Amino acid sequence: MSSLFVRTLREDPADAEVASHKLLVRGGYIRRVAPGVYTWLPLGLRVFRKVEQVVREEMDAAGAQEVLLPALLPRDPYEQTNRWSEYGPTLFKLQDRKGGDYLLGPTHEEMFTLAVKDMYSSYKDLPVILYQIQTKYRDEARPRAGIIRSRAFSMKDAYSFDIDDEGLARSYDSMRVAYQKTFDRLGLPYVICSAMSGAMGGSRSEEFLFPTEIGEDTFVRSAGGYAANVEAVTTPALPGVSFENVPEPEVVPTPEAPTIETLVEVCNDLRPRGGQPWQASDTLKNVVVAAVHPDGEREVLVIGLPGDREVDMKRVEAALSPAEVDMATPEDLEKYPELVPGYIGPQVIGPQSARRAEMGEEEREAGKLPLRYLLDPHVARGSAWITGANKVEHHVFHLVYGRDFEADGFIEAAEVREGDMAPDGSGPLELARGIEIGHIFALGRKYSKALGLTVLDQNGKATVVTMGSYGIGVSRVMAALAEHNHDGKGLVWPKEIAPAQVHVLATGKGDEVFDTAAAIAGELEEAGVEVLYDDRRKVSAGVKFADYELLGIPYAVVVGRGLKSGVVEVRDRAAGTSEEVAVVEGVARICEVAGL
Amino acid sequence: MSSLFVRTLREDPADAEVASHKLLVRGGYIRRVAPGVYTWLPLGLRVFRKVEQVVREEMDAAGAQEVLLPALLPRDPYEQTNRWSEYGPTLFKLQDRKGGDYLLGPTHEEMFTLAVKDMYSSYKDLPVILYQIQTKYRDEARPRAGIIRSRAFSMKDAYSFDIDDEGLARSYDSMRVAYQKTFDRLGLPYVICSAMSGAMGGSRSEEFLFPTEIGEDTFVRSAGGYAANVEAVTTPALPGVSFENVPEPEVVPTPEAPTIETLVEVCNDLRPRGGQPWQASDTLKNVVVAAVHPDGEREVLVIGLPGDREVDMKRVEAALSPAEVDMATPEDLEKYPELVPGYIGPQVIGPQSARRAEMGEEEREAGKLPLRYLLDPHVARGSAWITGANKVEHHVFHLVYGRDFEADGFIEAAEVREGDMAPDGSGPLELARGIEIGHIFALGRKYSKALGLTVLDQNGKATVVTMGSYGIGVSRVMAALAEHNHDGKGLVWPKEIAPAQVHVLATGKGDEVFDTAAAIAGELEEAGVEVLYDDRRKVSAGVKFADYELLGIPYAVVVGRGLKSGVVEVRDRAAGTSEEVAVVEGVARICEVAGL
Repeated sequence: MSSLFVRTLREDPADAEVASHKLLVRGGYIRRVAPGVYTWLPLGLRVFRKVEQVVREEMDAAGAQEVLLPALLPRDPYEQTNRWSEYGPTLFKLQDRKGGDYLLGPTHEEMFTLAVKDMYSSYKDLPVILYQIQTKYRDEARPRAGIIRSRAFSMKDAYSFDIDDEGLARSYDSMRVAYQKTFDRLGLPYVICSAMSGAMGGSRSEEFLFPTEIGEDTFVRSAGGYAANVEAVTTPALPGVSFENVPEPEVVPTPEAPTIETLVEVCNDLRPRGGQPWQASDTLKNVVVAAVHPDGEREVLVIGLPGDREVDMKRVEAALSPAEVDMATPEDLEKYPELVPGYIGPQVIGPQSARRAEMGEEEREAGKLPLRYLLDPHVARGSAWITGANKVEHHVFHLVYGRDFEADGFIEAAEVREGDMAPDGSGPLELARGIEIGHIFALGRKYSKALGLTVLDQNGKATVVTMGSYGIGVSRVMAALAEHNHDGKGLVWPKEIAPAQVHVLATGKGDEVFDTAAAIAGELEEAGVEVLYDDRRKVSAGVKFADYELLGIPYAVVVGRGLKSGVVEVRDRAAGTSEEVAVVEGVARICEVAGL
Repeated sequence: MSSLFVRTLREDPADAEVASHKLLVRGGYIRRVAPGVYTWLPLGLRVFRKVEQVVREEMDAAGAQEVLLPALLPRDPYEQTNRWSEYGPTLFKLQDRKGGDYLLGPTHEEMFTLAVKDMYSSYKDLPVILYQIQTKYRDEARPRAGIIRSRAFSMKDAYSFDIDDEGLARSYDSMRVAYQKTFDRLGLPYVICSAMSGAMGGSRSEEFLFPTEIGEDTFVRSAGGYAANVEAVTTPALPGVSFENVPEPEVVPTPEAPTIETLVEVCNDLRPRGGQPWQASDTLKNVVVAAVHPDGEREVLVIGLPGDREVDMKRVEAALSPAEVDMATPEDLEKYPELVPGYIGPQVIGPQSARRAEMGEEEREAGKLPLRYLLDPHVARGSAWITGANKVEHHVFHLVYGRDFEADGFIEAAEVREGDMAPDGSGPLELARGIEIGHIFALGRKYSKALGLTVLDQNGKATVVTMGSYGIGVSRVMAALAEHNHDGKGLVWPKEIAPAQVHVLATGKGDEVFDTAAAIAGELEEAGVEVLYDDRRKVSAGVKFADYELLGIPYAVVVGRGLKSGVVEVRDRAAGTSEEVAVVEGVARICEVAGL
């Protein structure tokens, strides 16, 4: 400890909100260099390498072969798959001295596809699974929580190449099993959730989430075994309802009803309904959002959903991927005077839009539809709604979907709620939060097609190879482990990934204490145990204990007061227990007590 | 071999000129992704990791502590040391989504300085040596020879921090010794050469060069033990000579004398000298170069040197560092009509320049001197020369340095020649070529001063820390090892860094051959030996032998024809020898023969 490049901090760093971030910085494991960019200090690097090694061993055991591709990549392959633009501002781009365009790899589907194309030509060469562990670069809009969401992070990314879909299914399953083994070995709990493939493309995709309240991913699960990222939850289509007895739409002045809540009140005041009072679920809320498409186009569109539901922007973004989605700004709204904020109704937008009716043939053919109107699937065909009348302080009653208005399509936009039914019928959903630690994709032929990766099949016919891609955020997994293994005093690393197994503390002043402690540290190291020896002479016992508790090495040997009676103390950081061991019993006994 | 991600090539790649490049590509160790950017394939990654591990172990043994800094770095620290601009186009620069300036680290002095500043505050914390092994990015103008000079390459960079110069000297020496141990362990020959510090700054600097004819660095050595990079060779100052009896300068028409050779001929024809004929060494050659300074300014300047010497542009560039230097272009010359190509003399340039005489006070103070004239130190004060008369087909005789012209200073510009004397008097120099595999710098306080790294000394006074920096090009070392360990048939790896120790070849058709080979491969692996088993069924023995020779695994076990007599063949790739071993003797005997 006297020469180790580490400084522990008593105070939480100002920018840290979650435990792993606070403790990894306070313990001198990592240091911030720029937003979302971190340095690994000696202790941090040791833990990181151990996590990496577990990931590597499980990949190797699954038959995957390790390679290492560059992080600095030429534009062309990403142009061919359209990701040069689709990735948007998340892609770090640069030019070399000759003006050539390059990017910093956010993920390497393109380059692995080309590597296999370069080397292989026959079905006999397949299947093959390749992987690398490497720094990835993504210019996140909001880097957060230390190494949980950073802009330069370590990822294990694997890619499978098969001749057919059955092969892909086998490769996918082998990676799925390898991921389970990896996280089991690390002692990290996980839930496997159905997920959206998003910008990656492909048919099947699952996320491994570490469940934690500080996670930024929301997922749902049912008692019946359904689990999905909230973006991937599909709403079962509602059966149509009859509107035979629904009166014609009627515009009603609704003063002082700018919100759903006030609107419901006003409706019950003005037009009370027999049977049961109007509720938020009788109102149709229309939310204006702006989707920024990869080509830079900013599209304003409107989403309709029952007034008792909120829009979940992440679900909207997943549904509109690869576009990025924001709430519409006042500038966006200014361009569409037909949108009267607070009183928007579908009568003048989407297929009903006058703007669209006036649109020329050419624009229509170009597929540009101003003010698209999309409905959340909680809106049943034939259902009647109270909604905006597109006029300040006016709403319309009895507006029927399918009679009085149409939409341009459906979008999964409404928040998923605790108690909603699982789409597979396995019961009501509960909501939870988690951190994405792994993601597996059955990509199919998107990349191989775009980049021309074919091999000759058994009949000598060129066949497009089918692919999968499989990621583990190695640095993020380390943060998840810190989240999962800490208490109020500091980190509590599991043995396999701790920076050392035993922390030897010399807590006293005499040479005897230090000589004994040094001897024990030396003997432990000779016995193959990794040791951190706190040999600092002018540091109090209190500071040493606090550092031990903060750093989280699983066992401590305290050489101090007990030495007079010929004993040292062996502490178990996780259990909080301690046991005296006679010095004469030697390190063999210490190892025994510590279970090493 | 049947599932390993490798394809060997019989033909040399078109862009490869040196053996390591050819063989590493042909053997499926590396593949090019973009100019100077490579992928490590499975076999290459194994060798690379082994080299890296040797470097790491020797760093650890020297007490250096491993950390890992990001490659994506903010501009500000590099701005403070001026390297943001000094590095010129070699620096990969980029912007993030918010327009913040970033660079890809070419070397990390700034960031390590800041890391120590962040953590340490007292002389008691020092000394400390930190290192990392990481991908560095340099946008080389001419990437070449595969991984010998690439634009993304792996470097081990270490940094020492000391309270005073004696400490720095100790840290420097400890790194120097660690480098010697590293290269000794790798079996890589090296010469330690005095070197220029160049853009790095600092007082002392040495290069570790692997001597090879394909090296791009020229170095010199004397029998007396002097060794230096050619850029660092200093020319001992010549004593002044008397010009008492030298006639006044005389301009002479010299038709058909555009080169030094023709000039000497013409002079001997027109004005024969008594005693001995005129020689090239009697002429003063004036060479126009353009230095591109880090701020982008392109400065045209003239260098004078004896006509029997060539200008060594690398020496010039080292002398004018951090500027980049090229020969002047016709466009450069057009700006200075006083420069008459082929007939340039110092009478109108440098201190003699009419242009400079006309220069305003302000420009003079800004330090802008048009057409600086620098002399190579082989020109002695008082010496007389035949040189250009600044007029087509005219030269001047008897032009004396110190009487008829002055210079703006000296520059080490002339090529160093075999037989020149070592500056330390240790005898004549021989010239050789090498590849720079390591470089150590006593930086001093350049970076700590610029970035404010001080610690309190024993008297509580803030003291600027003194630094060293120490690099090993890990990927380049691997290439150097390939250069050093190959023959006409392929690579010949030393045991410690080979991708496997034993290559098992099944060369036959029957199941018995493959079963026996598989059993031997399995038993060797169980015995802890790394094995590459060529289990390919439909590949001829000839192809298998060729692959074995190309890949360069040190030992082969050939299971084939001999099996009928109960023997296998153990081959030694380096020695070219082979020995029969009875199968019944088992792998223990194989290991014995192979010395494993």
